[in-house]
Amino acid sequence: MNKLSSMRGAALAAFTLTVVTFAAAAACAQSLSDIKPPAEPLVLLSQGSFFVGGRTVDTEDAGWSNMEDLFGEPFEAGKVTVDQMYVQFQVPEAPSHPPIVFMHGGLLTSKQWETTPDGRMGWYEYFTRQGFPTYLAEQTGRGRSGFNGTIFNQVRRGKLSPDTQPNVYLGTSNMAWKVFRFGPELGKTNDGLQFPVNHVDEVYKQIIPDMIETQVPSLMAELVTPETNNPTVDNIAALAHDLGGAILVGHSQSAGFPTQAVLKNKGGIRGLIQLETGCFQSLTDEQVAALAEIPILVMVGDYLGPNPGASCAEEMDKIKSAGGDITFISLPELGIKGNSHMFMQEKNNLVIADLLVDWVNEHVDRENR
Amino acid sequence: MNKLSSMRGAALAAFTLTVVTFAAAAACAQSLSDIKPPAEPLVLLSQGSFFVGGRTVDTEDAGWSNMEDLFGEPFEAGKVTVDQMYVQFQVPEAPSHPPIVFMHGGLLTSKQWETTPDGRMGWYEYFTRQGFPTYLAEQTGRGRSGFNGTIFNQVRRGKLSPDTQPNVYLGTSNMAWKVFRFGPELGKTNDGLQFPVNHVDEVYKQIIPDMIETQVPSLMAELVTPETNNPTVDNIAALAHDLGGAILVGHSQSAGFPTQAVLKNKGGIRGLIQLETGCFQSLTDEQVAALAEIPILVMVGDYLGPNPGASCAEEMDKIKSAGGDITFISLPELGIKGNSHMFMQEKNNLVIADLLVDWVNEHVDRENR
Repeated sequence: MNKLSSMRGAALAAFTLTVVTFAAAAACAQSLSDIKPPAEPLVLLSQGSFFVGGRTVDTEDAGWSNMEDLFGEPFEAGKVTVDQMYVQFQVPEAPSHPPIVFMHGGLLTSKQWETTPDGRMGWYEYFTRQGFPTYLAEQTGRGRSGFNGTIFNQVRRGKLSPDTQPNVYLGTSNMAWKVFRFGPELGKTNDGLQFPVNHVDEVYKQIIPDMIETQVPSLMAELVTPETNNPTVDNIAALAHDLGGAILVGHSQSAGFPTQAVLKNKGGIRGLIQLETGCFQSLTDEQVAALAEIPILVMVGDYLGPNPGASCAEEMDKIKSAGGDITFISLPELGIKGNSHMFMQEKNNLVIADLLVDWVNEHVDRENR
Repeated sequence: MNKLSSMRGAALAAFTLTVVTFAAAAACAQSLSDIKPPAEPLVLLSQGSFFVGGRTVDTEDAGWSNMEDLFGEPFEAGKVTVDQMYVQFQVPEAPSHPPIVFMHGGLLTSKQWETTPDGRMGWYEYFTRQGFPTYLAEQTGRGRSGFNGTIFNQVRRGKLSPDTQPNVYLGTSNMAWKVFRFGPELGKTNDGLQFPVNHVDEVYKQIIPDMIETQVPSLMAELVTPETNNPTVDNIAALAHDLGGAILVGHSQSAGFPTQAVLKNKGGIRGLIQLETGCFQSLTDEQVAALAEIPILVMVGDYLGPNPGASCAEEMDKIKSAGGDITFISLPELGIKGNSHMFMQEKNNLVIADLLVDWVNEHVDRENR
């Protein structure tokens, strides 16, 4: 595999989405009535939400020029906050593990880790029940973290030309079906697929516009370069520091964020979990040395062909040579078959969660005894 | 007060936001370290999230044309889901009240009801602790509910002219400070203000771009007209029905949504709570009759001048004449002074929550004994 195709393979696997629709109908009754309450109550020491990071920028195009009637003044100019990261959390009654921070993939939000499309318990609640103070971080530019909207109003008003406006990435059904590896083409499922495809509409509802181009100049470069100016990476690095230690988990578009966060040198990162790739090809010796200090788990699902670890081989070799602790798990090679890119939502999602907990017990907790 | 100024007054009060910044700095350590855990654990029978509504539309401009290298095909055309509404919920161990659904205001998300800017318990957790199965509904077009992004790509590519692109409404600091009634101008606070202004940066972080123009042609019309095509209103009406009965709470931009939801005639709405206005001036007799069947509470904060109920007087008279049960509470008239537009986040936020619980006990629960 040459470097370009390796990068592309890593980047492709490192991306996200979800869509399709053979039964698009308003499925609200179904999705609410599908909710399956757990057998035992959940007892929380605390729960809540807060923001990490954020900076203030000036705008002269806040979008209200047509609303002067409403407010009596135009409210066009002023300061707005951008690049903040919304974080929700819950702490179990008796924490038995370090805090764990989950970061969703492209086109998705932290909903990815909550109730599954077929109404079962997601990893947010499950890790809490396993004794982890559990944090869901929402990428800057997405969902409740917001984005910098000024440029859209500048284009609308002719201050900037339309081709300077960021792309708004939408996840179509055919794209999601293929990129999530539900099957070779829309409506055809891979053999033994664990994803509950009869609820695929519910995962399509999780897909929202991806505004990452308002944050970084090139998504492709972000996925394969260990250095980044993506504010989300600064924010999760700050979060791990401020928590006094945390395990960072990325998936797909964000799979490399935990590694990139280590290289910000803020400290506090006690473990890295990269779901569905996130490996880098061009790490410097200094970067390798930093990564060799922290236990790393890389995990991929099924349907990736004969050598799913190929794109991680170089990074793994370097880190191991430097005395690091990096584990690569291909689920089908463990005998766990049929998992797509979205295994945190699939029928055996808690079996896979247990593999992560086992890895934490062996590689993270052990270091701190 | 003539009709136009009354409408404008209602609409203005019925709007939302938040900003300003004298100390914009990255306040992540502060906001996390401000979190105040409760004295007693929270015990949940269940928790999770789901979507209500949503429909599928075709797009030919999904934004990926420059990413063919990444995926090997352009993924430009396909189907995307829009108008879905994200809902998070938690059910207490022993529910003692009907389900309650909170809908945030303009420029905000459901974060509005969670941990306050100064790290105290928000209404989401408090109402759960008072025995309510508690639901936070995120407006379609905002946060985790997503929006229809196709038109932005069409403008970017020259398929549509820039002036057809929806405004992206941004909440600037000076706008938020005034519209939220923190004070007469940025940095000057109203006497006795209950808002924790030393944490005002944290409420600015809650403000994200408002994409409501991708949903409805005129925000102004939406705020004053009882009929609406806003998909959020259909979705909360469906949610109340599917829950088998619920109290709907709106605030600011969404204060009128519960009333508009009643008029969708889907059933299941057991109480309406309109925070910071949401009254309508031109209700038909049929609409008045429908609203007279359901207990209604309208509540406003301080700093609204000498007759804060003026814009609701007409609606209240009509509903009372039809035998309805509508209560208007001006907090300062009860002796509770200093509350802004954002009283669910202020220092006395749980005192105000208790007023809502008392009203439910008296007006909603009583009907079902």
